[in-house]
Amino acid sequence: MIPQQVIARKRDGEPLSSGELTGFLEAYLEGRVGDDQMAAFLMAVHFNGMSPGELDALVEVMLHSGEVIEPGGGWPGPRVDKHSTGGVGDKVSLALAPLAAEMGMVVPMMSGRGLGHTGGTLDKLESIPGFRTRIPLEEFDRVLRSTGCAMIGQTAEIAPLDRRLYALRDVTATVPSIPLITASIMSKKLAEGLDALVLDVKVGRGAFMARDEDARALARSMTAVGSARGIAVTALLTAMDRPLGRAIGNALEVREAVACLAGGGPDALRGLCIELAAEMALAGKLVASVREGRRRAEEALAGGGPVERFARLAAAQGGRLRPDRDGYGLPKAPCSETVVSDRDGWVTAVDPLALGYGVIALGGGRRRQDDAIDPTVGFELAVEVGSCISRGDALAVVHAGSWPDLAVGAGVVREAVTIGAEADADPLPIVLERMRSANGGGGPPR
Amino acid sequence: MIPQQVIARKRDGEPLSSGELTGFLEAYLEGRVGDDQMAAFLMAVHFNGMSPGELDALVEVMLHSGEVIEPGGGWPGPRVDKHSTGGVGDKVSLALAPLAAEMGMVVPMMSGRGLGHTGGTLDKLESIPGFRTRIPLEEFDRVLRSTGCAMIGQTAEIAPLDRRLYALRDVTATVPSIPLITASIMSKKLAEGLDALVLDVKVGRGAFMARDEDARALARSMTAVGSARGIAVTALLTAMDRPLGRAIGNALEVREAVACLAGGGPDALRGLCIELAAEMALAGKLVASVREGRRRAEEALAGGGPVERFARLAAAQGGRLRPDRDGYGLPKAPCSETVVSDRDGWVTAVDPLALGYGVIALGGGRRRQDDAIDPTVGFELAVEVGSCISRGDALAVVHAGSWPDLAVGAGVVREAVTIGAEADADPLPIVLERMRSANGGGGPPR
Repeated sequence: MIPQQVIARKRDGEPLSSGELTGFLEAYLEGRVGDDQMAAFLMAVHFNGMSPGELDALVEVMLHSGEVIEPGGGWPGPRVDKHSTGGVGDKVSLALAPLAAEMGMVVPMMSGRGLGHTGGTLDKLESIPGFRTRIPLEEFDRVLRSTGCAMIGQTAEIAPLDRRLYALRDVTATVPSIPLITASIMSKKLAEGLDALVLDVKVGRGAFMARDEDARALARSMTAVGSARGIAVTALLTAMDRPLGRAIGNALEVREAVACLAGGGPDALRGLCIELAAEMALAGKLVASVREGRRRAEEALAGGGPVERFARLAAAQGGRLRPDRDGYGLPKAPCSETVVSDRDGWVTAVDPLALGYGVIALGGGRRRQDDAIDPTVGFELAVEVGSCISRGDALAVVHAGSWPDLAVGAGVVREAVTIGAEADADPLPIVLERMRSANGGGGPPR
Repeated sequence: MIPQQVIARKRDGEPLSSGELTGFLEAYLEGRVGDDQMAAFLMAVHFNGMSPGELDALVEVMLHSGEVIEPGGGWPGPRVDKHSTGGVGDKVSLALAPLAAEMGMVVPMMSGRGLGHTGGTLDKLESIPGFRTRIPLEEFDRVLRSTGCAMIGQTAEIAPLDRRLYALRDVTATVPSIPLITASIMSKKLAEGLDALVLDVKVGRGAFMARDEDARALARSMTAVGSARGIAVTALLTAMDRPLGRAIGNALEVREAVACLAGGGPDALRGLCIELAAEMALAGKLVASVREGRRRAEEALAGGGPVERFARLAAAQGGRLRPDRDGYGLPKAPCSETVVSDRDGWVTAVDPLALGYGVIALGGGRRRQDDAIDPTVGFELAVEVGSCISRGDALAVVHAGSWPDLAVGAGVVREAVTIGAEADADPLPIVLERMRSANGGGGPPR
């Protein structure tokens, strides 16, 4: 294996054999291929993509660069997880894991931190006082057995090759490549020992894939990889042309997720949680149709079990969450201010990108890898696309760490919320499209 | 300047300002941009090219990253150099420098090492025992005054940025990019203080430019940069669909070059040396036509001066070359084997790429920047395109460092030499096209 020959072949769009690509990746793991060579290879992949065979070899080496969980038997239900490609206000994982567990699934969830303008489940969980997202795999297994769900970050044992490539991609501008994203996500998910996986592929201005065709290609690529390896995969393309729900910011999003688990919360959030839970149940063969899955999810939410389960999950991982108290025991920002509309009209757009970057500006996200973040800051929207408002009505509440930051946050809200003299056509539905792997059912949206 | 933002802009085909590109390159020189980031940038340049303004900024930073020779007066003839874009079996420089000096030119030649699948003049020179290619510029000047030619590697003083990028490109498969090749070659040549320059632009499967139009674009790009900075530039497009001559591998190629200087050697090698020497003489205004230049080159070779001058040049740089002895005092590989044909027929192709990578496989080229190479290994072809052969006739002699490597080399020969039942049409001529800058004459092949 001559590294520059492998790079040259990828550069020229020639197919690589599994053996060639595997040899190249293993040589990288062993230090015989340098970061410089890998960076050039990744950039060539950005331009020329990967064949299904190449992608499979990449996933294989990534997956087996670390530990792969062999769950064994004795689990009370199918092991099912959900992964989102990342959006603004996307707190679905927090609500979905206990909901799915309540429905009889086992949810071994490994999540990531905020990336770019999007938030991360780990950062949100860590806004719960005491919550530990870094626990050994044995403890992860114990929590999973006791509560039916567990939520941690990628450990050093899981897919270390992905970890190294991710850091390299970040500094070499090779992040937005469909096969590289596919391999990164799927190698981690495959290591979880799943029966089924549901993917929430975000599309729109607030997503990494702004265009439908890119999101669809990514969804197809991930479902193909998963189903080739024997797990049922369903992908939903969901709208990220607006924030999901009304809270944006770590502790604020935990609060909204708890409200959702308690049977309240914004319709869009509740609706998407039910859709995803139903798809998880179908892919996990707990139910025979999405319709039945939806019914089971709604029943579970009505029964009050999920919110109590979330508190137990948090407690099992050291977190002090109090769903019975005002504010749920979550930290609060010292300053807050309501931003009001200066005119009458209709809300025609709410820009997720401006709000996502706004959270970073308030100190609730990272500019650099090692930045500390303030979990309390963010936005609570009082309107959504289609709202009819009058001058003086609230647009959003800004939560900040200082008075000067409130002004920054107010500016973000005014930039993000567009008010028109007339209402636009109805906004897109949240779920735009469904894709199911052959082993996981299929068909158009129902 | 955020490095990944500059890389992303080049990746997405957006124009970079001179200031941005200069800032990125200077940050690389100062260690604030890493090799991994530069490798990704170079691969993006491979795909998206460079505007004339970006190329000019790159040449400018490269040239002035080091010393620029100011030759002053008192030289016995025009300062003229030749540069080849690199091929397999291309030992022309070794023969041409002494030949041109014998014709009255001053040839201050700075060469490179093997790059990708092609050999490098420096590696070939260093197969001469004792030959020092790293000498200070003052000594280079002394050798040049005493023998009319001197051959060194790029010194630390000359275009150090090119030196670093060249090494990086070699291991990251980012060699065949027209703007990168242009900047690399022209920044070094512009630093030599030349009156004229002849470029040997290789085209075909064994060249970095496989297609005519790419080779032509490269020739145009280099002549434009050279003539804009005041030197006469002539470019010949020459065939690299087959190796040049019969020897491939460092010491083996020196031997063939010496044979050529002594009036022998393969016709293709001798012919190309005479063409290039004639063009150098024309561009340097020593002769009034290429025809006159050819006559002068042939007379020089017949006189026996060039081979003796090459030995003097070698001696001046510490090398022990003995044109009077068998093997010229060059090192020999411990093992060799003749590979014979298993059928009757005509040689319809000899693949330079397979043989170039074959030399690397035998240890005669580099896989990584700091690999040591074995100067003795390689191939001596016994046939060329158009040869009629019988079963049992020699195809080539493999020279290797060990018996197992002989088998590797034999496999390479069998892969490289295609034998057909019928002869193909005549192969292409060596010189395919000529291009002269406005200040260096011009016109079609004569």
